[in-house]
Amino acid sequence: MNRRMIFYMVGNIILLEAVLLMLPLLVSLGYHEMNCINAFSITIIIASVVGVLFRRVFDPKKNKVIYAREGFIIVTFAWIFLSLLGCLPFIISGEVPDFFDAFFETVSGLTTTGASVLRDVESMSYGLLFWRSFTHWLGGMGVLVLIMAILPSGSGRAIHILRAEMAGPVIGKITPKIKDTAKILYVIYFLITFAETVFLLIGGMPLFDSVVHALGTAGTGGFGIKADSIASYSPYLQWVITIFMVIFGINFNLFYMVVLRQFKAIFTNRELWFYFGMMLCAAGIITYSIYPIYNNFSDSVRHSCFQVASMVSTTGYSTADFNLWPDLAKGVIFILFFTGGCAGSTAGGLKLSRVIILFKAIVRDIRHMLHPRSVSSVKFEGKNLDVSVINGVTTYFALYIMLIAATFIVLCFEPSFDLQSNLTASISCCNNVGPGLGLVGPMEGYGGYSSFSKLVLTFAMLFGRLEIYPILLALYPRTWTKK
Amino acid sequence: MNRRMIFYMVGNIILLEAVLLMLPLLVSLGYHEMNCINAFSITIIIASVVGVLFRRVFDPKKNKVIYAREGFIIVTFAWIFLSLLGCLPFIISGEVPDFFDAFFETVSGLTTTGASVLRDVESMSYGLLFWRSFTHWLGGMGVLVLIMAILPSGSGRAIHILRAEMAGPVIGKITPKIKDTAKILYVIYFLITFAETVFLLIGGMPLFDSVVHALGTAGTGGFGIKADSIASYSPYLQWVITIFMVIFGINFNLFYMVVLRQFKAIFTNRELWFYFGMMLCAAGIITYSIYPIYNNFSDSVRHSCFQVASMVSTTGYSTADFNLWPDLAKGVIFILFFTGGCAGSTAGGLKLSRVIILFKAIVRDIRHMLHPRSVSSVKFEGKNLDVSVINGVTTYFALYIMLIAATFIVLCFEPSFDLQSNLTASISCCNNVGPGLGLVGPMEGYGGYSSFSKLVLTFAMLFGRLEIYPILLALYPRTWTKK
Repeated sequence: MNRRMIFYMVGNIILLEAVLLMLPLLVSLGYHEMNCINAFSITIIIASVVGVLFRRVFDPKKNKVIYAREGFIIVTFAWIFLSLLGCLPFIISGEVPDFFDAFFETVSGLTTTGASVLRDVESMSYGLLFWRSFTHWLGGMGVLVLIMAILPSGSGRAIHILRAEMAGPVIGKITPKIKDTAKILYVIYFLITFAETVFLLIGGMPLFDSVVHALGTAGTGGFGIKADSIASYSPYLQWVITIFMVIFGINFNLFYMVVLRQFKAIFTNRELWFYFGMMLCAAGIITYSIYPIYNNFSDSVRHSCFQVASMVSTTGYSTADFNLWPDLAKGVIFILFFTGGCAGSTAGGLKLSRVIILFKAIVRDIRHMLHPRSVSSVKFEGKNLDVSVINGVTTYFALYIMLIAATFIVLCFEPSFDLQSNLTASISCCNNVGPGLGLVGPMEGYGGYSSFSKLVLTFAMLFGRLEIYPILLALYPRTWTKK
Repeated sequence: MNRRMIFYMVGNIILLEAVLLMLPLLVSLGYHEMNCINAFSITIIIASVVGVLFRRVFDPKKNKVIYAREGFIIVTFAWIFLSLLGCLPFIISGEVPDFFDAFFETVSGLTTTGASVLRDVESMSYGLLFWRSFTHWLGGMGVLVLIMAILPSGSGRAIHILRAEMAGPVIGKITPKIKDTAKILYVIYFLITFAETVFLLIGGMPLFDSVVHALGTAGTGGFGIKADSIASYSPYLQWVITIFMVIFGINFNLFYMVVLRQFKAIFTNRELWFYFGMMLCAAGIITYSIYPIYNNFSDSVRHSCFQVASMVSTTGYSTADFNLWPDLAKGVIFILFFTGGCAGSTAGGLKLSRVIILFKAIVRDIRHMLHPRSVSSVKFEGKNLDVSVINGVTTYFALYIMLIAATFIVLCFEPSFDLQSNLTASISCCNNVGPGLGLVGPMEGYGGYSSFSKLVLTFAMLFGRLEIYPILLALYPRTWTKK
């Protein structure tokens, strides 16, 4: 275990955060928000000191080699330190004075969940609103992916970090060099975010709102700046956000294939077809279900498409309070809480490629029962899947359901929340969606939970974003013993 | 595919049902219930004719060999025919005139679910009430297990039938001969059921009630004869039923080990310890949660122990309307809907040995991440588990969750049921528990669902009892093609 390298890398990431905090500082300066300017400045100073200290104390000198386990631990610690420092501006500014609230909000931002404990988001300062949404953008693609795009590729086997931070059952390296892959991903990410901002501006959305919503969509986060999320914006703007939520739920490798003009690979991508097919089915059922409420076909289609895109991409924006929709629509939304978008996207959740592999594993087992001596291989995206990948996915699924169940049981100790709210809060946080049903619905928030429950949900979000294993490994005693 | 043998075996099972129907006929004769006497007589005649016909037409002659797939198909068809014929007495007697209601009730009985569509169970005739509970007893251990205990062991490889009908990830053959295993299991089963009847009689329960409740407990079914389930019986009787529910949730192989005086094997049985440990934890939390309602420690303990035993053994009896309990208690019950009892018991659900194997698979994967090149074996009950068994369990878990999700989504099309009722109805039926929460709570029933939803839930119960694969295989086209 290369402990020095772990904390050296964490130091780098903290320094990166200090740099990134300049952006919300600039926003605060632009809006002359004194308490925010102070808060961000102090945080930047603290982060710089801590970062430099980590880099000095834990200088790994020559031994920069890391393996899979170091990768997992780096990612776990990096995310926890990022969140701990990232919540300081909320606390120092006095706008979110409680530590548990601020920590929840920051983790919710970084993990792109978008669940909020704020009771009055519209009274927040611009600087903090920007920071909140900016954490979505950073957490969506991954902060360690960003640092790998920037830093010289000195640290050995950076693939282990990429693998630990990026979501999905298999990681597609689009270029042989990790640094290049990370760069390409971030360039694509930036360009699509920029495009969305432009489309929102064209629709008459103010600049600040456009940027914030573009960041929130890009990270598939869901923090808004209005109490009613996206409901008060025009249908055009809602459609723009719908389309971009769908886009950000797609595997980013496919966008690179567009650049490379490998259109055949895109059209034969099973996960993409499954993604569109599932959304169409879900939107169809919801439209049918909510039509009697709106009595208007175009409104029903718009609301249902928006909500389906929001749930599947795990963004969590909403144009309507789906808590008030019929139970059929709520039932479909409940199922969509789980699935998530495509692997390799910024979406959270289980990921559709896992769902497809689960189906294939089942068919494999059925075939095996028919012909017990046959050895059947499982193909996915044109390649034979390794048995260990399939088993990894089925085991991950069990772990994932257990995480939800454990979170749910702890929440049940809350006296003032009902079963439905607790269940959907657990599912929504573990899948990084944001809103749930009942008391944690899209027009409500998580503010009513106790500090302890908030902390549990905070870790549920972290577990969900990092796909459970990294944090479990950090908690597993054998990880820390030498060889 | 030995099709002749499949339907020949189904014919045998139908004839067995004709014989078994004599018992409720006798009960009807004892109570002079004319409409029941007619109904059972007509059903016996129909079953005899159909059974003989099947045996004649599909006489396999010399080729009696069956393989795994024939085993699955025999079990599937046997259960469907048993249910179709078993629901005739309800229809013919006019007490449950609707086919879908009667079919639901019979499948609920055979699968030991105990979910009921009857609106007024107390007005039913004794003959039908006895038949309802007798189906629990038959379905609990398995009708095919029974036929194997009786029939000469001529049919080759009967283990495939046993494996398809008995629940759990691995089948422990306690004797080399299937016929002996089946006999021993049924003798133990009969003796414990008899013991419970005696204990209930001692507590002053009338003979009919005692027999019916013993049959319902033994099969871990849950059909009662009172509108309030077990609530109106004395605490002594409630404790007797609690203890026997716990007993019938234990792997029957362990009882045989008691006979063989292999006590060490019993005390080192992991699943058994997990079973008791989980029930203790759950009962502790529920006692804590419901204490403010009853304001009495002994009542709280009794109700919580009863409900936990009822849920974990998937019986479904209740002494109180847990719908009115605090959300913490309901949350624990919600989780217990899933787990089920021990493998090799009459309990339904996922089975605890599967839960343990899921945990072990997760730990295996974590270890593998730490040391990617190491090969770690997984031990369970003192033996090394074959990789295919572990993967079978993780894949089964995915299939099981998908079954619940699919049932849930179809139920959501019901306009008059809410999310919680639909979700718990799906979970409860797929796990053969019986009651759910909300509108399908312990003091309510499934009568409000449409015929279509009832049919869906009926098949959910069958899927759950036969552990999904047999029915899936029967529906899988390749099963039916030659080699």
